Formats: sequence, C-alpha cells, structure tokens
Amino acid sequence: MLKLYGFSVSNYYNMVKLALLEKGLPFEEVPFYAGQSPEALAISPRGKVPVLRVEQGFVNETSVILEYIEQSQKGTPLLPSDPFERAQVLALAKEIELYIELPARACFGEAFFGSPVPDAIKDKTKNELLLGFASLERHGKFAPYVAGDSLSIADLYFLYSVPLACAVGHKLFGVDLLADMPAAKALLERLEQNPNVQRVAADKDAAMPAFLAMVASKK
Amino acid sequence: MLKLYGFSVSNYYNMVKLALLEKGLPFEEVPFYAGQSPEALAISPRGKVPVLRVEQGFVNETSVILEYIEQSQKGTPLLPSDPFERAQVLALAKEIELYIELPARACFGEAFFGSPVPDAIKDKTKNELLLGFASLERHGKFAPYVAGDSLSIADLYFLYSVPLACAVGHKLFGVDLLADMPAAKALLERLEQNPNVQRVAADKDAAMPAFLAMVASKK
Repeated sequence: MLKLYGFSVSNYYNMVKLALLEKGLPFEEVPFYAGQSPEALAISPRGKVPVLRVEQGFVNETSVILEYIEQSQKGTPLLPSDPFERAQVLALAKEIELYIELPARACFGEAFFGSPVPDAIKDKTKNELLLGFASLERHGKFAPYVAGDSLSIADLYFLYSVPLACAVGHKLFGVDLLADMPAAKALLERLEQNPNVQRVAADKDAAMPAFLAMVASKK
Repeated sequence: MLKLYGFSVSNYYNMVKLALLEKGLPFEEVPFYAGQSPEALAISPRGKVPVLRVEQGFVNETSVILEYIEQSQKGTPLLPSDPFERAQVLALAKEIELYIELPARACFGEAFFGSPVPDAIKDKTKNELLLGFASLERHGKFAPYVAGDSLSIADLYFLYSVPLACAVGHKLFGVDLLADMPAAKALLERLEQNPNVQRVAADKDAAMPAFLAMVASKK
C-alpha cells in the first residue's frame, strides 16, 4: 500500500493527501517531520515533506509525487490525457507554486509563527505576490475549477497555497490579494464544501496544537 | 513547426533549446524578451521565458514545456518510461530548481549585473545554497549523468543552473559549492564537450553583449 510520509499541518502534504482521497486510493499516513537529521535525509534528500513510499522506494517533491500517482495508479484522473491540455494544468500548478506559494512561504515565519522577517524579504514577497496573483487572474479559468470544468492538480495548489498567501497579504501588507478575483473566492468556497477537503482540514486542525507547541519549543 | 520563444542568454531558455537539439526535433527560435507589457503577458502569463508555441497555443514554464515535449514529440527520450525511475529524474530536476536555481537567482543582480542585493536576501541564499548542494550530493547519481547512465531532464537543470549558482557562491560568498563533488565537476566538463551544448553556448556568447547593453539601459 502507498505510504504518505509527512504531517497534517503541511500544506504540501495536504495536496498529496487530497489527491489520494479524490482518486479513491488506499494509503497509510506515516508521521514524519523531516528536518536535517541523517535519518530524515535518508528518506527526503532535502529534508522536506511530503514523501511517498512505494514498492520501489521513496518519491519526493510534491509535484513529482502527484504526477507519479497519476501515471502509476488508478482512480479519478486529476490531469487531462491530451498533452496540450495537460500542460496547461501543470503550468497553472507551477505558476501557483513559484509565484504565489514560494514568495508567501518566505514570510510564513512572521505571519504565522511570530518570527520577524527582514524588510528586504517582505518587500520582495509583496512585489512577487502582486505579480503572482495577477498571473493567476490572467491564466486561471475558474470555470469553475482553476484549469477548467473538473478538479485537477492545479486546484490542489490553489486550495493549499492561495489561502496561506492571502493570509500573508492580509497580515503583513494589509492587502486582499483576491479582491479582484470573485471567481477565485467562489472556487475556494466550493472546494471547502468537498467532504475530502473537510477531512483534510479536520486532520489539520487536530494536529495544529501539537505542531505549534513543537515550533515554540524550538525557538 | 515548434517555435521556441525567448532569448539565448536565458538559462531556462537554453534548457529547452538543448532538449530540442538532443531530441533532434526541428524548431524555430523566436526572439522574445518577455516582461510585463500586455503583449508579452498574452504570450506568457507571468512574463517569463521560455514559451513554446505549438499548434494549439502556448505552453509556458520550463519544466512543463520539457515534459510536454517528451510526451508529444519523437526523438531521444530524456525521461525513463518506468514511472518510479521517471519520478527520480523529475525529483532531481525539481530539487535543482527549487534549492539551487531559485536561491541563486535571488542574487543574480549583484553577482552578474552590478545591482546590490540586501544582506538579508544574500544570507538566505547562502544558507539555502549550502543545503541545496548537499541535497544534490546526496541524491544525485553522477553515473556519469545526474540521474544515472543517460542524459535526462535532470542534466538540463544541472548544466544550466549549477554553474550560475557556483558563480554566485564564488563571487558573493567566496565558497566553492562543488568542492566536495568531483563527480559533478567531471559531469560539467563532459557536458561541455557535447556539440549541442557548445552550439547553445556559442549562441549565448553571441547574444550577451546586446543583452548586457539592454540591462544597462534599464538601470
């Protein structure tokens, strides 16, 4: 059986978890906090979550895991079969990762964990987030899903990266990054009604107190 | 015919160009400097290069273009067909992008174009590069190629991201990031003997003076 290594507070972990749930695939969750210990690095080369354990070994990097699952497992497709349409979905997912998730992530410490982030990094994040959301508005279809009429890998990135980036925008910059994107707001509301999304969220909420205590103990 | 939009100084552009050359596919190069003009954003949602023009429209994001080419075109494969082995190659490529290319890129302005980068960003880049190269040493096979015995998409990222990151390490931090990785150094030397790599490098050298003049005129 597929084994998903990671923890329920990680948004990247939850992208893969939701993919497995949406595809109806059986899997086991293995608590794994990654980090830079030799044991963790033997599982995940850069000490990140999630990692998928399969028969042949470990698969790391969320985007790679998601494509691996699509290619090797059964269940509801989260990517179109046509190469051009597939590329449009993957490009949207990649844009959300590079231009929304990663700049926002550089400020997670201050936005969520009380660790101040230098102004130079906050300025860079703000500039990049404004361009990243403009790009999403330009390229996203929201019809009603990010890449068209069905749930895809792009929606996984959208659901688990965009709200965190919006929280960074609100808390650090006083900006509503989705102000001009009502269709994106409507999609978030629609996704939050999905029972699998609700299950992932409940697991996250249950894990959050212990996670925050762990972060505080490391300060 | 495939049309590759971008410019020969871009390392991402050169990844796709080398892929097309190695696969023996005919293509036309279309000069495109991207940016934030409406015309550029109609081609590339975030104003980046490269973009591939195909019959159905544009495909953007280098990693997506590379996979699209693999899936839809003939020629020498740059990805294994087995899903697990394919995932290992794509994970290595992604690790080079996220943990080497992107942190290094945050310092390209100071390293290559005389635009000072704030210390907070340089400190972050240095920390991330050290971890990124350790990850590459841990996960890379260098047997002799990054992911095994044949040239793959991971080598495209390696060839066009690692030397730039090494230049950042040398110029800004006085560090030889490949000091403990003789096999990686040997692979760079091997790749530089490849006639297609030499053609891409010659095109880059020819385009560099005009590119530097353009950068200087925008300061």
